[in-house]
Amino acid sequence: MGGDEGPAMTLPGIDMALARHPNMRVLMFGDEGRLRGLLDRYPRLRERGEVRHCEVAVSMDAKPSQALRKGRKVSSMWRALEAVRDNEASVMVSAGNTGALMAMSVFVLKTMAGIRRPAIAALWPTMRGRSVVLDVGATIGADAEQLVDFAIMGEAMARVLLGKDKPSVGLLNVGVEEVKGVEYVREAGRMLSTARLPISYRGFVEGNDIAEGTVDVFVTEGFTGNIALKTAEGTAKQVALALRQYIEASLFARIGALMARGAFRKLKARLDPSSNNGGVFLGLNGVVIKSHGGATPEGFANAIEIAVDMAKSNLIEKIAADLAAKQAPGNGETGGAGG
Amino acid sequence: MGGDEGPAMTLPGIDMALARHPNMRVLMFGDEGRLRGLLDRYPRLRERGEVRHCEVAVSMDAKPSQALRKGRKVSSMWRALEAVRDNEASVMVSAGNTGALMAMSVFVLKTMAGIRRPAIAALWPTMRGRSVVLDVGATIGADAEQLVDFAIMGEAMARVLLGKDKPSVGLLNVGVEEVKGVEYVREAGRMLSTARLPISYRGFVEGNDIAEGTVDVFVTEGFTGNIALKTAEGTAKQVALALRQYIEASLFARIGALMARGAFRKLKARLDPSSNNGGVFLGLNGVVIKSHGGATPEGFANAIEIAVDMAKSNLIEKIAADLAAKQAPGNGETGGAGG
Repeated sequence: MGGDEGPAMTLPGIDMALARHPNMRVLMFGDEGRLRGLLDRYPRLRERGEVRHCEVAVSMDAKPSQALRKGRKVSSMWRALEAVRDNEASVMVSAGNTGALMAMSVFVLKTMAGIRRPAIAALWPTMRGRSVVLDVGATIGADAEQLVDFAIMGEAMARVLLGKDKPSVGLLNVGVEEVKGVEYVREAGRMLSTARLPISYRGFVEGNDIAEGTVDVFVTEGFTGNIALKTAEGTAKQVALALRQYIEASLFARIGALMARGAFRKLKARLDPSSNNGGVFLGLNGVVIKSHGGATPEGFANAIEIAVDMAKSNLIEKIAADLAAKQAPGNGETGGAGG
Repeated sequence: MGGDEGPAMTLPGIDMALARHPNMRVLMFGDEGRLRGLLDRYPRLRERGEVRHCEVAVSMDAKPSQALRKGRKVSSMWRALEAVRDNEASVMVSAGNTGALMAMSVFVLKTMAGIRRPAIAALWPTMRGRSVVLDVGATIGADAEQLVDFAIMGEAMARVLLGKDKPSVGLLNVGVEEVKGVEYVREAGRMLSTARLPISYRGFVEGNDIAEGTVDVFVTEGFTGNIALKTAEGTAKQVALALRQYIEASLFARIGALMARGAFRKLKARLDPSSNNGGVFLGLNGVVIKSHGGATPEGFANAIEIAVDMAKSNLIEKIAADLAAKQAPGNGETGGAGG
């Protein structure tokens, strides 16, 4: 039960999710004493939830190596992941330490056959709806083959979460002519164009295409993806702040803004990180959703919403089937004549 | 006289800049016949400008290699760069093909001693004012030493354009714990921390810090920088569009927005790419400013404004002095005892 505020934030969030999903049940891993007192306020949660007492919690600022050393087998994070591994739980949701969660996820769930490193996928609101962007921070400096794996995993996730039969996939690249040749991205483009994958690959896209929602799945390596995500979050805040300052500078504008407050409220809701909360760890034998540590209860409920969609689908099987297609004769370095 | 619309956009832009700067003179490289007719409309430009006829223009979609083959020595772009090389002009401003401009700039002006590849620096509006962000697309996959060079060049540019004595410098990195270790960025951080450079280095920063203006100079390699820049541009547009849609959906909000139109107008001006138009090529023996190809005349005038600031400063000499400091004994691999 992690995050900046612990169960005080997560419990009401879980309670909201339970209200939306009458068949959902929840296992809570954390300090029983601390949870008990809070649970009294949420009868629904007490009824449909079960507490598994854990003595050790991974702190928000622990390094992954420390977390593994101290939290292996005994921490709430580790044990919640074990519940997924042992099919006691369909999905694991955490608002805890991202680095520790990723490290433990790899240890407990292991990466899928053929996947060297997992990715974190974000659901990104666009002008047209939502797109999947990955990797936003798990695998730094991915190579061409890893980008292809990300494309496969992101596409399967988009089918599940965006409800599209044939989501389109683009590779993030830069537009400046002379450098279009960042080699591993071009190589990934060649692989996606020529391999017989069940993927609708649309070619290179640029940074501004994300906001425009030009494709359903944007693929990049984790360093660039993480900086793009945070740059966009910062820019959205900046625009909202500038608007507020311009409005507050004039009485007339303040009155006008009051009249238009419905529109502003909608904009605020749209820009609220809570409404898009929930990074999906892909490439593991099990689904893990990472909520912002500073999420609101509504935000945590939204992360659980993603988890529910994932649990209902058989995402892991879908990804495994596509990865197998990639290994098929005729695709890339595995050779073969092809039909 | 390039750009999407050619002289029809650039000439009125130059005319505006001439009105602001009574001592400025301008050399125009392009098709004399085409320019002559237009010049009649701008008496100020006819008086303080000089046309150098060029038969060949680099097209907006030419590859850099094609541009060099066809435009070497004869194109307007090449000859304008020669004017900088030969000290006929202080700065070169172009709205033409970015890749070709960079390739020709390197050929004609050469990179400064100690610089392997140039950078493109953007002036980025932040919540606190403006920051310099580089590289936004010239050098893909820079190594640690190149990042240090970018820091030196960007810091000198910030002194000139932001008018700060000691601009602060940060290295873009990612926050996810386990991957904070992208090695060349950490290495650049070590070099900036330990070298005796006249630079106020503040450590790592993240994507959201750009909008917040946490430091004056954000340093990253060109692939990530280009994607961050375009992601931010896209996001700003997206937020503005969402706001417009929410307002248009309600009559009451439309009336309110009418009352607050002064605030909206200011926001629009702030988000207008024109007001921050002008990428600065750094690391060459001469200053080159790249305007957006699709800039408005106001935007082109803003790019010239940057050019004027650069021309008044002795930026190249400042950068050269700092690069020399980097080579001094006691700094990094050049060894020596240090005091």
